[in-house]
Order: sequence, then structure tokens, then C-alpha cells
Amino acid sequence: MYFKEVHRWAAEADRLLPELRHRRVAPVALVRPEADSAAWQGWKTVQAGELTEAVGAELPCSCEFTFDFGEYCVGHLELEFEFTRPVDAPFCFRAKFAETPFELASDFASYHGTLGRGWLQEQEFVYDDPSGVIRLPRRYAFRYLKFRVEAGSDAYRFRLKNICCDTTTSADWSKLPPPAPSCDGLDREIDRIGMATLAACMQECFEDGPKRDRRLWLGDLRLQALANYPSFGNLDLVKRCLLLFAAATGDEGRVPGCLYLKHPLPVAGNLLYDYQVLYGDMLLDYLRASGDREFVRDLWPVAKRQCELGFEEFEDDRLVEREDRWIFIDWQENLEKECAAHGVMIYALERTFELARELGIEAEVLEYPVVAERLRRMAVELWMDRESGFFRCGPDGQISWASQLWMALAGAVPRDQAADLLLRVIAEPAATGPGGPFLHNQMVLALEQFGRHEAARALTRRYWGKMVEFGADTFWEVFVPSEPLRSPYRDPMINSHCHAWSTPVFNFRQSSGVNIPVSGRR
Amino acid sequence: MYFKEVHRWAAEADRLLPELRHRRVAPVALVRPEADSAAWQGWKTVQAGELTEAVGAELPCSCEFTFDFGEYCVGHLELEFEFTRPVDAPFCFRAKFAETPFELASDFASYHGTLGRGWLQEQEFVYDDPSGVIRLPRRYAFRYLKFRVEAGSDAYRFRLKNICCDTTTSADWSKLPPPAPSCDGLDREIDRIGMATLAACMQECFEDGPKRDRRLWLGDLRLQALANYPSFGNLDLVKRCLLLFAAATGDEGRVPGCLYLKHPLPVAGNLLYDYQVLYGDMLLDYLRASGDREFVRDLWPVAKRQCELGFEEFEDDRLVEREDRWIFIDWQENLEKECAAHGVMIYALERTFELARELGIEAEVLEYPVVAERLRRMAVELWMDRESGFFRCGPDGQISWASQLWMALAGAVPRDQAADLLLRVIAEPAATGPGGPFLHNQMVLALEQFGRHEAARALTRRYWGKMVEFGADTFWEVFVPSEPLRSPYRDPMINSHCHAWSTPVFNFRQSSGVNIPVSGRR
Repeated sequence: MYFKEVHRWAAEADRLLPELRHRRVAPVALVRPEADSAAWQGWKTVQAGELTEAVGAELPCSCEFTFDFGEYCVGHLELEFEFTRPVDAPFCFRAKFAETPFELASDFASYHGTLGRGWLQEQEFVYDDPSGVIRLPRRYAFRYLKFRVEAGSDAYRFRLKNICCDTTTSADWSKLPPPAPSCDGLDREIDRIGMATLAACMQECFEDGPKRDRRLWLGDLRLQALANYPSFGNLDLVKRCLLLFAAATGDEGRVPGCLYLKHPLPVAGNLLYDYQVLYGDMLLDYLRASGDREFVRDLWPVAKRQCELGFEEFEDDRLVEREDRWIFIDWQENLEKECAAHGVMIYALERTFELARELGIEAEVLEYPVVAERLRRMAVELWMDRESGFFRCGPDGQISWASQLWMALAGAVPRDQAADLLLRVIAEPAATGPGGPFLHNQMVLALEQFGRHEAARALTRRYWGKMVEFGADTFWEVFVPSEPLRSPYRDPMINSHCHAWSTPVFNFRQSSGVNIPVSGRR
Repeated sequence: MYFKEVHRWAAEADRLLPELRHRRVAPVALVRPEADSAAWQGWKTVQAGELTEAVGAELPCSCEFTFDFGEYCVGHLELEFEFTRPVDAPFCFRAKFAETPFELASDFASYHGTLGRGWLQEQEFVYDDPSGVIRLPRRYAFRYLKFRVEAGSDAYRFRLKNICCDTTTSADWSKLPPPAPSCDGLDREIDRIGMATLAACMQECFEDGPKRDRRLWLGDLRLQALANYPSFGNLDLVKRCLLLFAAATGDEGRVPGCLYLKHPLPVAGNLLYDYQVLYGDMLLDYLRASGDREFVRDLWPVAKRQCELGFEEFEDDRLVEREDRWIFIDWQENLEKECAAHGVMIYALERTFELARELGIEAEVLEYPVVAERLRRMAVELWMDRESGFFRCGPDGQISWASQLWMALAGAVPRDQAADLLLRVIAEPAATGPGGPFLHNQMVLALEQFGRHEAARALTRRYWGKMVEFGADTFWEVFVPSEPLRSPYRDPMINSHCHAWSTPVFNFRQSSGVNIPVSGRR
């Protein structure tokens, strides 16, 4: 195995730690949340006084304001106070940060979700010496800030002299090419919000969400890298993340599903099947975007090893069931995943073989196309329903977007019928659709793969356009238009509203499907 | 004026910044507060499980413990956790520090006092990276710690590996002479707790209370210095504080009533009449304790100036009423203060003259004894009631400890009658007594001044002995045995339970009243 290389890869990843770009953003208005059944999740914000009532004016010892920063911010809050009477006690205030009006209106004390409550961005602060600039120690992700001073003593009078967020990103906005001239207003809005989402997630690594989980997930990285190549073009950040995963492999050589750079446990985390086997696919994308053969060649053994480990979980050409393995595919409840996961494995084998060919070392993996072909035959035999023309999976013969798109990408239908399969399942009312943005992006990639650029655009406009309509500042982790309070964590206040996998991978920077460096290309 | 010297004095004070002595204290038990009408303020603590249930054991994602550190601690809490499952969210906990069982049982959310709520020692903490030793940024003063982890996710399991308080003081316990052999058990208890109180208040300056206000008050410093000379003998800390006050004088040359070293306002604070005029008295004490004539000579102009400023507030030999001046004397409601404040001024003039004589510069202030004598005659004329033999002040002819003791110290009665006046007022049921430890200490000093060492001891044992009986770890800012919930701030949870002015000035290190360097001596 390559365990001897791990320290070198870790050191190389460290050297690629980006210097973050800073921009200070000040609030633009005072607002308050207001219930409105027509608004997304039932809440909007309305103006509540003039900003000058909070900034610059002498304030009483206890007061509360909600600031609207006018845009989504990721960074450190900075506050500066001027005390107009002698300070007689430590200065304390409470700050609640919210991504959306719903989160702003929610009472975090009522939280009952399954994820740690530490993600809810609310804390009280006490300063013995409140002079000078106070910079809150944690990084926050928010548009709204509810700020309450609780001095509780009449000896206090103060002004809030300055308030701003020192935002950070490793995206360079000056490098962003404009959208194609053919883009209309909606295209441009989706693109603008998509790029804001991507940039907010680009910190010291590609994070899944800057509010939550601030983690580098392999499956999110794949989509972020694809969105990044034609936009910000930050190749080094992708390179660093590929190295971080390679460096996190254990004795077995397996890449983990995600990395949490703040993690106090050094060992790799969960076993995430459909993320892990696509490591070679991501290397191939990177090779095509960067041309850096030497780097990709160095990581080749990791890609190959993921295919081996993935295929080890097959018996008689079928994926065996395992308790400790997580097949994600999508956040759709009741989704039958075997067919899609089977397709991911085939696709991984094909793409990894293609990578080997581009590196001139296909002799190492000559069996991959052979295995892939065998798995395709098995797939057709198991799941192809001649009558409906769909792949049907599970005891009830479920027809899903996931099964069709991964079978299409796996080449389980002739290339000239693949697009038709995709368009038919999109149009099929009985089909199990996507549970959120992640699978929408997979479908966009598949449509592009089979030359349906306009259909990919139409799907992007239809789905992401709805979030635009609902006033998204950045694109949301969880979005099913008919279920505004849906949450995979049993409480929507913990949902992330700026999420890597929700960055549209559709490339508005070109007007046709030619030459996009998307993952599906073969 | 001496405004040119101010920067030099400030620099000299900086050079005397003490290096704090550290000692780590670990909790000794798990407890919980329990209501008990027989306990002071209605609350005691009882054991609640074994310490090993909290320290070392694997804990659930949410849990709460109350630690008893077994002694009063001033310092920084340090915590170390071990995570036995991968951490999936920022780690958050809440810590409430309490000096007493009553404070532990109080709900800080119900606080309605007049002082800033920032003094209530409770805060929540959120750590993105909870690995390694977590040292809370603020210093706390406490015996009890209520600690609640609110991870709220089952992905968390952890152990609390270590918990301790890194305590600090600038007192050197190794230098503390033992109490005199004649001391009995109660004497030793009062002395032990008194020294713990003094040491806890000895930080980078003499603080009034390490929980609240963490401030250097001139009147508290006077008592602390007197308690410190025969015990810890830290002369440099007194010197530093005298310099800090001298350096804080403004254009007028007036020393402020207190200094708050964390203060964002550079200007001196309040105008505290009876503290300010005793600056010369404190310099004389310091001269006698240290023998450092050169230093005292340097600060002499400050002492002289305080007398001038103090006497400027007299018209026709009576103190004029002023809105912006605070005469403290004691925390006793309805206390008529004019007579006592008048006595303080006389005493200040006499002591400052004595200081000048010891420095050989009495020619500068030859008028002081003359003025003092005139003020004494005025006092006798205004307030002496021949019938009762007491000084009676205010429209109702109030007889108070404060008036008698300051008149005695001012020499308004013949020296051979002074002790009798003091003993009579102590025995007088109709007299307005002391509102707390501060005036008790003034009475102890006055009794010593007139050779009544045993009466001073008896008063100390009677009053401080009650706090011992009520289980004090350190002596309390506010203590009237019949009023357990008394608070000058309208809410007893903000009272300080380790307070400078409550350190008994009675010197248990000698068995007779000879040669104690107390302030009253002439």
C-alpha cells in the first residue's frame, strides 16, 4: 500500500493551505422577522427602524437589534464600542446568527434535532475589557444577526461605533469570467447565487457548508471541483483537498467519506461507498482541468485502490449488504439504492480505466472494462424492465431518477438511448424523484454527458429558479419546494442554507454543451 | 501641581506589577444545593454522587454536574476532554460559578439588581476544536461550579479527563507568620479565613473582591494594607497601589475613589470624599511598615493635596452639601454622615501633619493642627450632647457607631474618655450600628488606637465569628446576621462573598495591643 506516502501528501496539503481573502461587510438595515404564510418557511424580514438608531447613537444599558447584512457572510464579527459613562461591570451581550428569516425567528432552545446543537449559532459573550475592537473568536455563516446587550446597569451608556463581518473566502472573485452573453435574467441570478454559494464554501478546504458541517466531504468536493474549474478556477484548492483525502487513508488505503479538519480524533471517519469509489473520477477531472500529469500520477494508486476496495464488496457481481457501510446516493426517503450504487461502481471502473489510459498505464487495470461489462449485463438482467423501459429496483420495482441516471452513466443502455431514458424519467410522475439538490446536480451532469445541454439548463432553471423565487441568498442543502420544513435531521433550524452540493454544476459560462469539463464526459 | 510626575509614577507602578503565584486546585466532591432554613441564606450543599461519576467516566452527550472545589478559588478553569466517538459538531457547555450555596441555587435569569449583570459568573462556551486543554478566558472566583454539557447529539461520547482551577494570588503563603500562641480555635479560624480572603483579593493589585468589583478602592486598600503588613508583608503591592492612585490624579491633583485597571475610560472615576482625604494616613502607615522615606517623600505632595481639596469643601468650618460628592462611611441606610465625615477630615489633617513631621517637612503644613483644632471645637459645638455623652447627628439627633468612632479618632473627646465613648456606643441598643464589615473594621482600629486590644478582639470574635459559624470560606462584603438576604444592590446574588474590607484588621499575630502598625496610632 501507499502508507509510506501519507506523510508526504499531508505535508504537501499543508503547503497548499490557502491564504484567505478578506472583505469587511457592514449591516445595511435593521429588521425583524415577521410571519408570512406566503414566504418560504413562513417567515420574512421587514424593516425595523433606521440603522443609525443602532450604530452611532447612545444606547441604554440593555437593548436589542437585528441587523441585516444584506448578503450572506462567512467570517468573524467585529464590534467596537465607545463607553460614554465609566464601565462598572464586565460587558455582556448575546449574539444569534441566522442564515434565513425562519432561522432568525426560531427559538433555538426548542431544538430537538439529531445533530449536535453546537451548530446553532448563538452564544453569550462576556468581556472584562470591552475597549478596542472585539473580534468574536468563532467564524459564523449568516445574513442576519440578532444582537442583545445585557449590561443591566444604569452606569452603562455606550455607542456601537462599528459593526462588521470580516468575511473570508479562498475564491478570487476577480478571476470569475462573466456568464455567457446568451444568459437571461434568471440564468444570471442562478449563476450569481451559485457562485456566492461556492465562494462561501471555499475556505481552507472546500467545506460542505460554512455553517454546518464545515467539513470536506468527498461527494461534495466532486461537485464543487466541477463548478470551480470553469469559474474561480482555483486548482490548488482542489489539489489540496485531493491530497487531504489521500493523506487520510489508513492501513487499508481507503479514503474516508469526509474529513473534519478540527477533528480531535485523528482517524478517518465513515465508510461512504458511493463517494469513495469516485476518487479516480475526480482525479481524471482534475487532470483535464489542470494538465498536471505528475501530480495525478502520484495519486493514481489511491484511485486504483478505491476501485479494488469497492469491488471487493461485490459477490457474484452483486453488492453485498453490510451494516457498517453507508450508501448515500441521495437524501430521498425510501429510495431503493442497490441499482444506483451498482451503476456508480461501473462508472467508477470505467472512469478509473480512462484515467489510467490518459496516464499511459492502462496495463495496470486491463480487467476494469471487462468487469464493468459483466456488471452492466448483471444490471440489465436484474433491473431492466422491457415493458416500461426503466430500471426498476427493490421489492416493489421502484422507478427512480437515481437508478436511471446511474445506469445511463454506467452505459447500461446504448449510448443513443441514454438521453431518452433520462428525459423519460424526469417526465414520469410515478418516478421517485430527487430528495434535494445533490441528485439534481447528478442529473444535470448526466444530461450534459449525453449532449442535452438545453435540458440540463431547463432542469437547473426549474429547480434552482424556485430557490431564487423564494429569495435564497445562497443555495440550500435541503430543498423540496412542496416541503418547506423538511429536514433530514428532524429539525429544520439546523439545516444548512449555503451548501456545497447545492452549487449548480450547470455551467452558465458557455452557451453550448461543448467542452465542459464535467465528470460525465468519456 | 504634580501632573508632570504622573507618567513616572505610572511607569513605576507598572514595574511593580507582581508575578502571580499559581496553584492548581481540583474539585473534591459532587454536590447539589439543598434548601435548609437553618443554613445561611437558606441553602446548603449536600453530596450528590461520587466524583468519579463525572471525572474519568464515559459521559452521555448531555449531562450536568456541580463540583465543589472544597475551598475558595480565584483563577482560570482548565478542562480536558477525551472524545471516545468522532466529534460531529462544535462542543458546547455552560458553566456557572458560585461563591456560596445560595448563589449556586439562585437563578441568574431572575436577577434584578442595580449592578451590571456581567458580574454574575455564568456563560456558555462553544469550541470548534475541543481537543487539548481548554482554559476559560475569564478569571472566576468561586467554590462551586455547575457544569452542563449540551452536545445534543448521540454521535458524542466523551470523558472529562481533567478539571481544575489554576488559582492565582500575589500573596506568598510561605511568608505568613503563625498566629500568636495565645489564640484559641475561634481566633485561628477567623485568622485562617481572613488570610484566605486577603490572599484571594491580592492579584495584580489589591482588589475589593475577586468576583466583584475586581477594583482597587482606596478605602479597601487602607484596610488591606493594614492587614497585609503583619501577615503576608507584601510591601511592593501596597507601593504599587499607592502609585496607581497617584498616577490617576487629574489636573486638580485629586485621587479617585477607585481604579478599574480594565477600564476603557482613562479618566479617574468617582469623587469619594472619606476615602480620598485618608491618602496621607495610608502613606504614613506605609512609611512605618517599610521605612522607605524616599518613596513616601516623593508622594507627599499627593497626600497634602488631598487635605487641601478636602478642606476646600468646608465653609465656615462645616462640610458643604454637594450633589456630585459621595461620602461613604458605611453601607448603613439612614446613617447621618456629616459628623463622621467631619471627623474623617480632622483625622486626615492630623495624620497628614504627623507624616510631614516624620519626613521633617512639617513647616509645609503648620496650619493643619490649627485647622483640626478649630474643626474639633465646631464638632463639639454642633453634635456633642452633654446629657447622653454621645455625638448626635442629623435632624433627629442620631447616635451612631460611625459618629462616635470618627469623633474619637479626631480627638473630639479627651484621650482618656475616647475608649469609654466607643465601648458605650457598642453597648447602646438605640445606637445606629454598623451596616457591615467595613465599619466593624473601623471600630476595631479605633479600639486599638485607644489601647483596648481585648475589646477589639472581642468585637472581632463576635462579628466575624458569626460568619465562621455560618460556614464562610472567605469573609463577606455584606453581613448583618439578622438580614441574610440584605444587599446594597437590591439582589443578594450579586453580593461579593470574598471582600477586601471584610478581612479582619485585628492582628492575631500578636498577643497584646503593643506596636501594631494600625492606622489609628498617633
